Amino acid sequence: MAKTDDKADKNGKTGSAAPLSAKQLKAYVDPFRFDGSGEFHLKSHKPGEKGDLDKDSALAIIDANRQRLRELQEKLYAHDRWSVLLIFQGMDAAGKDSAVEHVMSGINPQGCQVFSFKQPTSKELDHDFMWRSLICLPERGRIGIFNRSYYEELLIVRVHPEVLAQEKIPPELVTKNIWQERFEDISAFERYMARNGTLILKFFLNVSKDEQRKRFLARLDDPAKNWKFSMGDIAERKVWDKYQAAYQDLIRHTSAEHAPWHVVPADQKWFARVVISSAIVGAMDKLDLRFPEVDKSEAGNLKKARAALEAEARGSRQKE
Amino acid sequence: MAKTDDKADKNGKTGSAAPLSAKQLKAYVDPFRFDGSGEFHLKSHKPGEKGDLDKDSALAIIDANRQRLRELQEKLYAHDRWSVLLIFQGMDAAGKDSAVEHVMSGINPQGCQVFSFKQPTSKELDHDFMWRSLICLPERGRIGIFNRSYYEELLIVRVHPEVLAQEKIPPELVTKNIWQERFEDISAFERYMARNGTLILKFFLNVSKDEQRKRFLARLDDPAKNWKFSMGDIAERKVWDKYQAAYQDLIRHTSAEHAPWHVVPADQKWFARVVISSAIVGAMDKLDLRFPEVDKSEAGNLKKARAALEAEARGSRQKE
Repeated sequence: MAKTDDKADKNGKTGSAAPLSAKQLKAYVDPFRFDGSGEFHLKSHKPGEKGDLDKDSALAIIDANRQRLRELQEKLYAHDRWSVLLIFQGMDAAGKDSAVEHVMSGINPQGCQVFSFKQPTSKELDHDFMWRSLICLPERGRIGIFNRSYYEELLIVRVHPEVLAQEKIPPELVTKNIWQERFEDISAFERYMARNGTLILKFFLNVSKDEQRKRFLARLDDPAKNWKFSMGDIAERKVWDKYQAAYQDLIRHTSAEHAPWHVVPADQKWFARVVISSAIVGAMDKLDLRFPEVDKSEAGNLKKARAALEAEARGSRQKE
Repeated sequence: MAKTDDKADKNGKTGSAAPLSAKQLKAYVDPFRFDGSGEFHLKSHKPGEKGDLDKDSALAIIDANRQRLRELQEKLYAHDRWSVLLIFQGMDAAGKDSAVEHVMSGINPQGCQVFSFKQPTSKELDHDFMWRSLICLPERGRIGIFNRSYYEELLIVRVHPEVLAQEKIPPELVTKNIWQERFEDISAFERYMARNGTLILKFFLNVSKDEQRKRFLARLDDPAKNWKFSMGDIAERKVWDKYQAAYQDLIRHTSAEHAPWHVVPADQKWFARVVISSAIVGAMDKLDLRFPEVDKSEAGNLKKARAALEAEARGSRQKE
């Protein structure tokens, strides 16, 4: 499966698919969306879930959402008030890169920027842990995509204490409260972003350990994918349960109505893309995006501009 | 006064003054420091206050503090864990620029950066209001100075509603709660910075309206200072009381033990500098700054390095 469905819908046909209603979009998103109200148990979320869809109907939905997203992005850009921040997290081979590629392809790159956060540089370690992400936040009118993010500070840094030790935080500040503090600090910053006009959507691509194994094997089988594999990936499988616990904890503590987590079933890539694209389109649809209106005084100026351009043409005809 | 004391202590002699004890430093700072506990009334703070000091003894204190600051900064840089953020706010001509110049001159510029925040650019307005400051936060081991800061968002933006309208926040998010939200967001971010190793000290240079008038006249009298004057400065005097109310409100809502405000009497520039430099030295003194220790394995390497360098010398002597 990992091998076959990867390129299927990337450059899907456009223009034909009917847009989904708000109700339809909601139906594909709500079972996987967590806004912080109620309890959250990761075990109740099945990575293999695919709703009542088959692959063909999924591709049609993804295609329709992609068209709608292109229109919404154009309005977002013209309206120039809101920004959109999409955060993707997941284990290796969960499909983060390909989800970004498939869901976002077709939109105007001028209005969209993707940042991948890998091992921090020494310059980045010289700052607080959010700094390297904050400097990349999307401008108004833009969609910013974080492929991994400051949430790694609650994942790899939590699972591997030696990574925390490499951060140059004054040792007296590193206490047993550090994770609770990071939940609080990240939540507060996301609330601030939301208050200032950023739509935040967070996606955890929930892949099963078995499906990850298959995808790793596919990477080993295919010379063109060998580069994606590293021995470290195998080592990380040994602490799989620690990562799952860390994900559950961060989703419990950092979900909010203004910054929900989506626990996206990721064993079927096409189903993951239905959920992700429906979440983005559904949420952007609710923003009151509109093309800027021209006010009366400005309308008068446009009239004058037209007159001037037409007069120029008359002038050049007289000269001829 | 504005004319005469400005250059007096800028390149003051060094090496002679005795450092102040922690108790002495505290005595110059505490009356003006507000950490959020208790009540705060700006009217109880007199801009003309100068303690029991005369100018000569003040200059000696400033000089002693400057030497101590140079040593502390060297340690801060070598230790490379903490960063220091100094925020200066105040009305025009309150002495922000000259305070930075006098207190900080003599320290190694490699470990210190000053950022002045003027009218935001269009790129800056495309981001949330803190973004332009956040990207300039000091690295570990450095002192960062903000001459004006995100606090302008609670000052000029609050006093002049038309400035808020220019910010491109989605209108539906601009509610009557906006100032309360900004207090909360800024406080949360400062708490985050403190938790991650930033020492934050905030200074409000509290100048009187009458002293400001005298300093403006001095700017008009002196051709070399004319450039510092603008007609806008006169207009701002008409909303003096609104600014005072805004300062009082922000000091009440954004002071904390980890990010205190200092309401610095600023009519006597030399007294202001005593308070500011004592606050910085006193707070940095409390950090456990130290030169990195060489551990045992590293000590062995240093021994080998010495042996190699000495062997090289023997080698070249044999060749001669």
